[in-house]
This record gives sequence, C-alpha cells and structure tokens, in this order.
Amino acid sequence: MSEEWKLNKASEVPLHRQIYDSIKTRIMNGEWPVGTRILPQRELAAKFQVNRSTIVYALGELAADGFIESRVGQGTVIVNNTWSVLAATPSPDWNQYVKSGSYQPNIHMIQQINRAEADPDMIRLGTGELSPELLPTAQMRETFNGSMSSRFTLGYSEPKGSLYLREIISDYLNKKGIAASPSSILIVSGGLQGLQLISLGLLHHGSAILVENPTYLNSIHVFQSAGMHLHGIPMDAKGIRTESIGRLKRQHSAALLYAIPAFHNPTGTMMSSDRRTELLQICAQERLPVIEDDVYGDLWLDTPSPPPLKASDKQGLVLYMGSMSKTLGPGLRIGWVVGPEPVIDRLSDIKMQTDYGSSSLSQHAVAEWLSSGSYEKHLVQIRAELMKRRDFTLAMLERYFQDIAHWNKPQGGFYVWLRIAKPISIRPLFEQALKEGLLLNPGSIYDRNDQQHLRLSFAYASYDQLEKGLIRLAELIRLLVL
Amino acid sequence: MSEEWKLNKASEVPLHRQIYDSIKTRIMNGEWPVGTRILPQRELAAKFQVNRSTIVYALGELAADGFIESRVGQGTVIVNNTWSVLAATPSPDWNQYVKSGSYQPNIHMIQQINRAEADPDMIRLGTGELSPELLPTAQMRETFNGSMSSRFTLGYSEPKGSLYLREIISDYLNKKGIAASPSSILIVSGGLQGLQLISLGLLHHGSAILVENPTYLNSIHVFQSAGMHLHGIPMDAKGIRTESIGRLKRQHSAALLYAIPAFHNPTGTMMSSDRRTELLQICAQERLPVIEDDVYGDLWLDTPSPPPLKASDKQGLVLYMGSMSKTLGPGLRIGWVVGPEPVIDRLSDIKMQTDYGSSSLSQHAVAEWLSSGSYEKHLVQIRAELMKRRDFTLAMLERYFQDIAHWNKPQGGFYVWLRIAKPISIRPLFEQALKEGLLLNPGSIYDRNDQQHLRLSFAYASYDQLEKGLIRLAELIRLLVL
Ligand SMILES: Cc1ncc(COP(=O)(O)O)c(C=O)c1O
Ligand SMILES: Cc1ncc(COP(=O)(O)O)c(C=O)c1O
Repeated sequence: MSEEWKLNKASEVPLHRQIYDSIKTRIMNGEWPVGTRILPQRELAAKFQVNRSTIVYALGELAADGFIESRVGQGTVIVNNTWSVLAATPSPDWNQYVKSGSYQPNIHMIQQINRAEADPDMIRLGTGELSPELLPTAQMRETFNGSMSSRFTLGYSEPKGSLYLREIISDYLNKKGIAASPSSILIVSGGLQGLQLISLGLLHHGSAILVENPTYLNSIHVFQSAGMHLHGIPMDAKGIRTESIGRLKRQHSAALLYAIPAFHNPTGTMMSSDRRTELLQICAQERLPVIEDDVYGDLWLDTPSPPPLKASDKQGLVLYMGSMSKTLGPGLRIGWVVGPEPVIDRLSDIKMQTDYGSSSLSQHAVAEWLSSGSYEKHLVQIRAELMKRRDFTLAMLERYFQDIAHWNKPQGGFYVWLRIAKPISIRPLFEQALKEGLLLNPGSIYDRNDQQHLRLSFAYASYDQLEKGLIRLAELIRLLVL
Repeated sequence: MSEEWKLNKASEVPLHRQIYDSIKTRIMNGEWPVGTRILPQRELAAKFQVNRSTIVYALGELAADGFIESRVGQGTVIVNNTWSVLAATPSPDWNQYVKSGSYQPNIHMIQQINRAEADPDMIRLGTGELSPELLPTAQMRETFNGSMSSRFTLGYSEPKGSLYLREIISDYLNKKGIAASPSSILIVSGGLQGLQLISLGLLHHGSAILVENPTYLNSIHVFQSAGMHLHGIPMDAKGIRTESIGRLKRQHSAALLYAIPAFHNPTGTMMSSDRRTELLQICAQERLPVIEDDVYGDLWLDTPSPPPLKASDKQGLVLYMGSMSKTLGPGLRIGWVVGPEPVIDRLSDIKMQTDYGSSSLSQHAVAEWLSSGSYEKHLVQIRAELMKRRDFTLAMLERYFQDIAHWNKPQGGFYVWLRIAKPISIRPLFEQALKEGLLLNPGSIYDRNDQQHLRLSFAYASYDQLEKGLIRLAELIRLLVL
C-alpha cells in the first residue's frame, strides 16, 4: 500500500477524521481543484483500507463543511476550498484544459486495463510482457560493474542516440540480413515512440494508413490522435492478405502500410516467406512505404524467423522498428528505427525537440548486453521458458476449451488468439472476470468490431495463475454464451 | 572517427575506389534513396579524412555510372540506383514525406548548433549543460551495486512513473515548501517532455501562451509545432514585469503563462520574492495557469533560492516542472511535473500513449541519489565548482570585455547574458566564430528580434577553453562591430 493513503491505526484520532484531514489537505493544496470528481466510495475504501461506512462518514463531514457536493450523474465533486472562499478567486478551470489538447484519451477499456494492472493480485491472462521472473533484473546490475567507464556518459547524447550503441545495433541487424549504417539508425525510447515520431514527422493530418486487421495499432492512439485514419486489411494464416492492398492504397491515397510480420500482435501469426515477397512487390509497385514492426522477431520458438522484410528492401521502402521491450525488459525503454537517411534525419530532429534523446543509462545497458553476447544467451533461456509456457497453455486449452473455442499454435511471440465458438457478449465477460480478479484483453481492443476473440498471453502470468485463470475463464464463457 | 566512414589505408584498393564503394553501398541499400542530397564535398572529405580531390574523383565516377548528378542550387543528388533501373520501380518519394508532418523542423541555427556539438574540438561558450567532468559518471556505477534488488524492476512502470520515486520526490519537494502527494506527480523524460505533454494534452491548436522575453521556449518548437502562439513579456532585473500580464491575457485569451523564475534561461535572472507574490496574485485574479520551470532552482551559488511559486500556490494554479538534467546529468532523462491531480492524470494518460513511461534504470538511479543524500552532497560540490567557474568567467569579462559589453552577475544557474555595447551583426559573428571552432549561442535564438546579446555559459567549457574562447570572442566582436 502506498504511503499516500496510509492511516495511523494506532492514533487517538478516529479514522474518519484522518480521512477527512487527508482529503481536505489535497483540496487545500490545490491537488484536487474545484470541479474535480473524487474517487467512488468503494475505491476510496479500498485505498484507505477501511469500511465503506467510514468513508461515508468522512465524506458527510466534508459535505457539511462545504468542500464537496454529490451531483447526479457526476458523483462527488469538489465545490469549494478555503482559499477560494477567502480570496474570492476561483482556481482555473482545469476541467476544461483537460478536455482540450489534440491528443485523444486512451480508450476506456485500455484505461481500465492500465488501472487494473496496478493491482498486484490481478491474474493477467492477456498482458503483452514477459513475466517479471523472466526479466534479468539481477544481471542488469552487473552491466554497471564492468567496463562502464570509457563509453558511458551522463551528458545529452548525439541526436540519433549513442553512436556506440548504433554501431552495435548495426552489427546486430546485419545478422538478420539488414545492412544499415549507424547514420540510418535512430535510437528511440521504445517502439511506441518510434511510431509517434513517424506520426509527428512524416504524415499529414488526415493521412490514411493501411493496417492488418486486427492490429496492435488499434490499441494505441498514436496515429489516430494525430488525425490519421486506419484502414484494416484482413489476415489469414500466412499474414496480411495482399490482394486488396493496391485498391485500398489508391482509394484512400494511403501514405503508409503498417505491419507486424513476425508473431503478430494480437494474433501471433508469422507471415510466410511467400507472403513477404508478395507484399514487398506490391508495395514497391504502389510506391507505398511500409513500417515493419519487428519487436517480437527474436522470440521464435520452433524454427528461426525468416529474414525481416527490411532485409530484402533495396529501395528504402521499409522503415524497420525493433525494441528491447519484449526480450530484455520494457523498463529500459530502448528501441530503434531504421530507414533511409533523410527520413532518419527528420525523425531525429523531432526526437531532439520532444525529449532530447533516450536515457544514457539504458543505452549503455543495451550496448553492453548486445556486444557481450549476454543478449543472445538470454534469448536462448527466454525461448526455452516461453516454449514451456506456450505448451502448458495449449495443454490447458485442450483440456478446458475444446468445445467452446478455437485457437492457433503460435510459433513464437507471446500470444494465442482465442476464438470463442458461440456468440457471446464480450463486455460482460470482461467486467465479470475483472470483478473476480481476472484481467482479459478482448479482441475489440484490436478490432473495434470484434466480438468473439480474446488475446491470451502465455508470457506474463505464472503457471499457477495460468491454470487457475484459464479454468475460471472457461467457466465464465460457458455461463455467458448467449 | 566513426567506423562508418573508416577507410582501409593499408589496402591495395585505392581510397577513391573505397569511397566509391562506400557511397554506392548506401545508395544500393536504400539508405540514400533517389532524391537524397549528399553531403558537400568538404564535409565528405572531413568524414572520410581524405583530401577533397579524392572525393571529387570518387564522385566523378559515381556520376559517370549514373548514380548521382550535380544540380544547380541543390548540390549533388542521388538520381538512380541499380535496383530502380532493374526493377523499374522507383523508391517512394521520401522527400515529400520528410516535408509533411505537423512538427516544424528545428530552427536552422539550432540545427547548426546541434551538429557542431558533435565535434569534440569545438569550444562551446554557450552550452547549457554541466561540463562532462562535473557529472558524477563514475559514482553512477555505484548506484547499481547497492540495494538495487528489491525496488528495481525492468517491467513497464506505473502510468505516472515509479511510485517509489514519486514518494521520494514528494519528500524532496516538501523541503522546498511544496506539498505534493505522489499521485499529483508525473515522472517525465526530462523537462522538455513535460512541456510536450502539456502541449499535446491541455491546449487547443491556436492557443496563446505568455512567456518572458527572451525565453528558452523560443529555442525549442514544442508549443509552436502544436500550433500555439507565444507572446513575450519584457523582463527587468527582478524577473518578468507584471503590469501588462492582465491586458495581454485578455487580448489574446491566453491559456497559460510560462516562466522560469529561478536562474532564467537565457538571462540568468532570479525572480525576486516581491515579484513572485505579484505574479501569483495577478495570475490568480486572471485565472491564468502558470507553468513554473524550475530546472535550475537547485543551482543557487550565493544564497539559497526563494521558495518556488508552487510553494505559495493553494489553488492549483501552478504546474511545476523540475529535472535532474542540470544537476545530476541530462543523460538520465528524468524530470517531473507537479499539478492538480486531474491534470496529472490526463498528462500521464498521454505519456502512456507516447512512450509507456521513462527508463526504469534512470528512475532507479534518481531514487537512489535523492534518498541516500548523495544528491545533496553532489549539489554542494557542484555549487562550489560553478561558483569558481562563474567568478573566473566574470574576471575574464572584466579584463577583455570592459569597453565592448555589459553583463549581469548571476547568482546561480549557468548563464551570463552578455550585451554587446555597439551595434553588431550577430549572424556573421556566429559564422566566423564557428569557422574558428568557437560555438556561440546568439540571443536571437531566445528572442527572434534580438541583435545584441550572446548567452554565455560558465558551466560547460574548461577553464582553458573559457579563457581562450573569450579572448578570441572579444577580438571578433571588436572586428565586427559596425
Ligand atoms: C507490435 C508492437 N509494437 C510495439 C510495441 C511497443 O513496445 P515498446 O514501445 O515497449 O518498444 C508493442 C508493445 O506491446 C507491440 O506489441
Ligand atoms: C529552462 C529549461 N527548461 C527545460 C530544459 C529541458 O531540460 P531537460 O529536458 O533536459 O530536463 C532546459 C534545458 O536546456 C531549460 O533550460
């Protein structure tokens, strides 16, 4: 529990009074300005770890003193603070500011998921991260024991990121068949930032972007917030279907195609070699640049991934993105974008304008892991672990979902794309599961119209949680099919 | 020198042929797509460390083979690659993409400065960073030897940043008189990112922002790129002048006032206590929210800084920003924004959409430095060093600039705002100095109309460089006054 909500249970001061004081302080400091809606009673009770009746009592006193008011449809709202009474100058209307701004808020379900993830007891069946026990937290310390001195700097880094790291990434990419000089590589704070820079730096408001349907890109708002439109293209077992690309490109004057060829999020699909060749040919013909999001590429389990699209791109058609998030740790916030130099120059200029580069500690750590060979060794371990987890998850599905769902056997990455066999209302399933401490990633996050999929991840939850969670999920599905 | 440009001087293959191959590889890989302008001959000669005549020869061969063409007013441009000839499908027109995007490029002079900073021999008289020798690079290593285990995580962090770090920053702010709960604090990747989140999250396109004139905000484009207008307000020795704030607020329906009360960038001014009270009163009256940029606040030299504006703000009028960049190291990329909780919630939602949080390595490092007391100890050292450097710089100015310029004696921070006494053309001064290896920060970066100031920094260059650089600067000024 956070200090912030801690009450002194040994104190003479009654708990409801401590709660009164705690909330009043926030109001008087301006942390909760006039107009702020305060948390629902149930959530306050959970934060302060008291009975709801204690909260009701404390709120009653705050209302009696004129600080808060219950409003129909709005919940409980701050209406006054001592200062505004004294000074007769109300605070600025922050609510209005919060509604301004070009950026769209995250979709409601994603916000719910973000919040639920803060609860350590939640069983997370869909989370797209490695389980904390698979992250090399302890070894990370050693990274800073060794040869830190000469290469490491605490200053602002070069506009494209540490040259040392870019040279190492250039070598690492070379092994995948990608020829990229350090000056055609930009270090970013994770793949997501790469996408944001592309949206701020290369695209007009109103641009159209072709994407796989479903796609990770629907779960974030980075392009949509910048005023762009996404057009989905169906997938099959070999990846994105290519026959409609040309028509859609011309129809919408599409500016880009965004694809996740390796272990697609959310479906887990690996694009076949044939399909890759086809896709590149069509996009070259249409002069349609491609963003290749390869954050899962290193996570093959059965056979090595085919070379990235970028490896066959001799015309500068492909902007390639990689990241350490899915393999070494998302906390590092290190990724890279590779592309034609004028494009990389432009993106790096914008990166300088938005955050002056990525953490030099993280850049140093990644350089050490890649250059020492520790990264490759770590991958071998991770692959073995993920393979066990995948097989365990598939066994659970065989056992409990046989008659109620269909699924693929992913060859790598994190995800199983579970299709529920009978019609079901996903929203009540999500809500009921959440109440029981089971966090799901419904397909509608990745395809607004989807009503029959769940993205399962075998990477995050423990074996125990996977077992318990999947058994309960199967029961809930049986209860809720229409 | 970077690997990227290294030639094999021992090889049988003539240098011009190695250069030909090196450039041709870039063209064939699509790194330099058709339409790319290649570096001027002089710069290529410097990169490859050869005579210009060798470059001329290599470029001649590339032209003869049809890869490049010289075009009047455009320099040398890639016109062809073997693939485009073979496949008859030209690359996408990246040049057009590079010109799209809502983000404005950095102003030309800033781009020049960014580039010049990559040259290790450059004497940087205006750089707003601590000299590498003042950064605790070696000690940083120890941060990861100690108690890393329990608190450190490599996973994605909470939406507002590590709770542990926010609790520590809450304590740190408390010592400055600011009461802020962890949930009203957002960890950002440096102050610059804080500004970007505010611009994306709280302001309409076309919003007006009041700023001090001159201001740091003119040197970056973060608000301007989002379509906002800046209106400058004059300063005097006590800081921003307050008498026109109300009128300007109403005239432009200004949405925010941005100020740097402590050791202002670029003038070095410390806003007086009276002026602070006045400013807050007026802004409260006008319901005009204030961004208080306090990245230099810890760098007082003679007497402790007065409490931040935020310490007297009981209405949630002030969004407060701090950063580790000017004290512990900009490479960490850690700063914070403090404000009313609904505002912080909104900014953190956008932060999640743009980069999923800041580096957990950096967050861990800052938490350790602040909580162990090492940060305070480091500040004591830094203050002593900066005081010596300031006094040295002022002595140099006394000696060489007496009759040609005026300046203030800064009480902290990094900057002396040098006013050249006689009319001068700053651009030729900048260019000539650059040619001689002397990098200046002209006042026009901070106030478009300024033609008589230079921002000097006593924080970056070594004593030797400061001496040599200032002596040469005085000579150049004498030569170039009109
Ligand atoms: C396909 C894909 N791309 C990019 C990302 C972003 O990862 P990061 O910004 O942590 O590198 C994710 C994370 O979920 C992802 O699934
Ligand atoms: C006034 C001011 N604010 C903010 C910054 C940004 O610092 P950072 O993003 O490194 O924290 C600077 C850096 O020059 C500055 O001078």
